[in-house]
Amino acid sequence: MYLNLLLLDQATDAFAACFTQNAVVGNPVLIGRELLQQKLCAGVLINNRIANVSNKSGRKDAEHIINSLKEHLALQEAVIFPSSTGIIGWQLPKQEMLDSLPGLVKKLHSRSALDLAQGIMTTDAYPKARRAELGKGSILAVAKGAGMIDPDMATMLCFILTDINIKREKLQVILKEAVEESFNCISVDGDQSTSDSVFLFSSKQVNNIDEEDFKEALKQILAKLAEDIVRNGEGTEHVISLELEGAATKEEAREAAKAVINSPLVKTAVFGNDPNVGRILSALGSFYGKQKKEIDLEKLKIQIGGEIVFSDGAFQLDNQKETRLSDYLKECVLGAEDKSFPLHNKNVEIKIKLARGKSFAKVFGSDLSYEYVRENADYRT
Amino acid sequence: MYLNLLLLDQATDAFAACFTQNAVVGNPVLIGRELLQQKLCAGVLINNRIANVSNKSGRKDAEHIINSLKEHLALQEAVIFPSSTGIIGWQLPKQEMLDSLPGLVKKLHSRSALDLAQGIMTTDAYPKARRAELGKGSILAVAKGAGMIDPDMATMLCFILTDINIKREKLQVILKEAVEESFNCISVDGDQSTSDSVFLFSSKQVNNIDEEDFKEALKQILAKLAEDIVRNGEGTEHVISLELEGAATKEEAREAAKAVINSPLVKTAVFGNDPNVGRILSALGSFYGKQKKEIDLEKLKIQIGGEIVFSDGAFQLDNQKETRLSDYLKECVLGAEDKSFPLHNKNVEIKIKLARGKSFAKVFGSDLSYEYVRENADYRT
Repeated sequence: MYLNLLLLDQATDAFAACFTQNAVVGNPVLIGRELLQQKLCAGVLINNRIANVSNKSGRKDAEHIINSLKEHLALQEAVIFPSSTGIIGWQLPKQEMLDSLPGLVKKLHSRSALDLAQGIMTTDAYPKARRAELGKGSILAVAKGAGMIDPDMATMLCFILTDINIKREKLQVILKEAVEESFNCISVDGDQSTSDSVFLFSSKQVNNIDEEDFKEALKQILAKLAEDIVRNGEGTEHVISLELEGAATKEEAREAAKAVINSPLVKTAVFGNDPNVGRILSALGSFYGKQKKEIDLEKLKIQIGGEIVFSDGAFQLDNQKETRLSDYLKECVLGAEDKSFPLHNKNVEIKIKLARGKSFAKVFGSDLSYEYVRENADYRT
Repeated sequence: MYLNLLLLDQATDAFAACFTQNAVVGNPVLIGRELLQQKLCAGVLINNRIANVSNKSGRKDAEHIINSLKEHLALQEAVIFPSSTGIIGWQLPKQEMLDSLPGLVKKLHSRSALDLAQGIMTTDAYPKARRAELGKGSILAVAKGAGMIDPDMATMLCFILTDINIKREKLQVILKEAVEESFNCISVDGDQSTSDSVFLFSSKQVNNIDEEDFKEALKQILAKLAEDIVRNGEGTEHVISLELEGAATKEEAREAAKAVINSPLVKTAVFGNDPNVGRILSALGSFYGKQKKEIDLEKLKIQIGGEIVFSDGAFQLDNQKETRLSDYLKECVLGAEDKSFPLHNKNVEIKIKLARGKSFAKVFGSDLSYEYVRENADYRT
């Protein structure tokens, strides 16, 4: 079944959400942005088969289904968010969805979030759930997504539950910042899908937790989930983590780092276990050149796997070092066991140090493999 | 031999050049930007093996070689530009290059430009030369480049000769505009290399040609060469031409169109002969979303191969149309004969119409194939 229901024990006024920045968005995102202004929320109805983007009756159909669910649950004021991922362009099978609502409600339980994490999977290889404890409270988050390998199916969705009491306005600010530093720091295709969404709900049962501590814990959970998503990409043979320091602003750090990990030439070199520093330098230069900004080459440092490959205005390479780096890249190739279990330490680590300022970003990306091409070329045909 | 000499019959004060926008550039580009301020120019010494980027003695070595060539040619005032493509990071084999200069001069002839077009090739599958006549004058241009498939080797270089008399200041303005609408409208990897360069020299023998006519003829020649370069990409199975109209500015039109043809998801779909309109829409939305600009979906139109696939705010697709479009994409696959001879009409034509303004751009790109990955992953290893 492609429908899942996340229902809160009690409707709450402490909820927040972040949606894709894409200028073209699915109907659930259009509806969700409006529902964010409402007073109380009771949950989310998740459809992981049809994204419900740009078709004439899409918005009306989604609202009809949500209203029917609310009636069935006897909800008065509290809203239910719709959330979708899947094929772009198709219409919702409205009657089929309406018919399945009573069964969805009957199946609800409070034992574990694993059913939800599994239920929302599409091309995901494993369910993604992370949890943190903070004083007497906790944060639990489940996500779906396989490295944005395909916006038709692999939209990123994330649902976060906490009992920690944080004011609603603050909750939205904290969520936005945590998403910026986690999901917005991963990139496999360079684009956001039309449906990416992250929801956060608090039951407000646990008081007196410091907001900064909450924010840090949330950032850490979401960063782990983001890494899980990159690693999960079916075409991914290497996960690349790139730390860039010395940018003028945080945004510049993130965008410059993403420009390097999204360069097809850097990605194919990593896939081929080729420590091709020239491509890293060229991608970095291309990013800054487009913005008419300068790089001080004398102060630029680039490291791969802990080895300095560029400093003092020149490449620092010799045959032995190139061999060591190529061996390092080979050791970072993900095996089947690394893909089915989300914990390992095989990321290809690239570090770039600029002298433009004090801002830092860490981003995650993947290589570009034959499997990526196969997966994306053959998907619908 | 990896050196080629382009020597003018007579030094001229009517010359112009455009260089890469990359913030990291090769020593020949650094030197070239300065030489552009000089009075007279006599030619270009072209090295297609070592890009001469970021190594300590690179600038001094290049200047040494150029000065030695000038002495050999007994040039007083006129400058010779250095121009390079090739491996990033390596040092020039200075002595070897110095020793070969007399032989280069001896080999000079004025019969045809084909030797030059062939001599500067690296991964190019065929020599690239285009010519236009204008009144009693003409424009001849040769280029190298294989779709920027690899900035280590496939930097784009272009050398243009004309006898049409255009003032130097005007020549620079015209060249810049023509490059913007030709070489800057092609994209295979999304990045400019560290060495891309275009030079233009006039012997000023033919007067009274209208500047606008000259500009138009130049644009057409360079646009053809740009298309030749995209088609030449070794991993290219489809050339994609994308026309975007209705953008707010010319720059926006070009950047939005490039964002779509550089989307790995659009590129892999075309490779797989899959008319996946959702990916085109999503890539377009991602571009505008990043800039916090809006798309009016009701007024958006998308066509593939002459068929409307999106209009009136919704996808316009049915099974028959999808089959026709997939057949169309299959017909556009380049065969071996299309790659060895630069003329054919097999481009995959995508048209996008926005309602944001009146600006238009046409850009060329390529699909993303297994061969692209192989080529770029295996290049140095």
